Amino acid sequence: MAEKGVKVFGMWASPMAIRVEWALRLKGVEYEYVDEDLANKSADLLRYNPVTKKVPVLVHDGKPIAESTIIVEYIDEAWKGGYPIMPADPYERAQARFWARYAEDKCNAALYPVFTTTGEAQRKVVHEAQQCLKTLETALEGKKFFGGDAVGYLDIVVGWFAHWLPVIEEVSGASVVTDEELPLMKAWFDRFLAVDAVKAVLPDRDRLLAANKARREQILSAA
Amino acid sequence: MAEKGVKVFGMWASPMAIRVEWALRLKGVEYEYVDEDLANKSADLLRYNPVTKKVPVLVHDGKPIAESTIIVEYIDEAWKGGYPIMPADPYERAQARFWARYAEDKCNAALYPVFTTTGEAQRKVVHEAQQCLKTLETALEGKKFFGGDAVGYLDIVVGWFAHWLPVIEEVSGASVVTDEELPLMKAWFDRFLAVDAVKAVLPDRDRLLAANKARREQILSAA
Repeated sequence: MAEKGVKVFGMWASPMAIRVEWALRLKGVEYEYVDEDLANKSADLLRYNPVTKKVPVLVHDGKPIAESTIIVEYIDEAWKGGYPIMPADPYERAQARFWARYAEDKCNAALYPVFTTTGEAQRKVVHEAQQCLKTLETALEGKKFFGGDAVGYLDIVVGWFAHWLPVIEEVSGASVVTDEELPLMKAWFDRFLAVDAVKAVLPDRDRLLAANKARREQILSAA
Repeated sequence: MAEKGVKVFGMWASPMAIRVEWALRLKGVEYEYVDEDLANKSADLLRYNPVTKKVPVLVHDGKPIAESTIIVEYIDEAWKGGYPIMPADPYERAQARFWARYAEDKCNAALYPVFTTTGEAQRKVVHEAQQCLKTLETALEGKKFFGGDAVGYLDIVVGWFAHWLPVIEEVSGASVVTDEELPLMKAWFDRFLAVDAVKAVLPDRDRLLAANKARREQILSAA
């Protein structure tokens, strides 16, 4: 018989895996967390996600689901009565999915070079990342959260910006999300990080800083 | 007041835009189709999709939605009573979304080099594309369609393979989806193309062949 309960396979510094924990905590679902060493993945992870072999994986009553944004939608549907993660209206749902895809495909790709460059080259990519985030920021206009009055799907998908970007900025010596350039997003960082379910599982800032510092040095020395 | 009705902005040879038409036809929804010249996009397309400026765009009672897979989910939710596109069960829905993402991210990327290479290099990428499709093919095991007994979300997302891949194979002089290597997928090609809603909007094969032949020659001569 399949194992009962909810299990999350994550990695402490993964900005994708934390989405699953945020969604479960917003729903009030209890879960067991398994931290993976990505250099030495567990047999369970490889068995539950043989296709991409990536974290996060959610295992619900023995049935595995992979891909963080898909897991978040699953959590909303499987625990339907609880906290609403997706907007109720089909059009609003499509908009939330559109912006999530935009953030994943465009903004993540625009942000990564900030972490891997210096000097003049970095100034150029910082500007490009800001343009991408400014477009995303339009989805916040007139609202407290991307989800409206409360944290929703899009907040969960882009939520890592609030905790990870200031760390990446510090490590890279660059300013991306500033009061001048991205005031709505900057203010949302504070509001999002103050939500109980969000702050309960944030990775330790110093540890994240050290890991990202080491990673940047490795990338820059290999370049 | 917002314009009433359903409008689709597509491009005749786009394997992404046709998904929207398939979904609407399965639902029995009438729509107006606008064919875009991507070298000279209409003011309407740019106004309805200012963020990515891409086809397809669905406009429903004046409200625009972009990104083909998001549009297909929207159509299923907005015309909820009709033909079911997404599986009813949340776990099955998550699996359909997972495979759709896998096909979009991995298989499309693995297939493209088949179109842009020749000789020994092409033999290598054909093998890689087949490996990707074999993994996807596991989702067809024991079923008539990816959606089960009838065409569903995943069939719509990967449906372009059935009409476009044989054209790409002919143009590129390569065999990817064969009875030996991918028997379930090959048989599914025939079943999928026999569905009324599917065949009603397929682009003319000769025209598609000519367009892809010209495109391949352009890419190879620039290489």
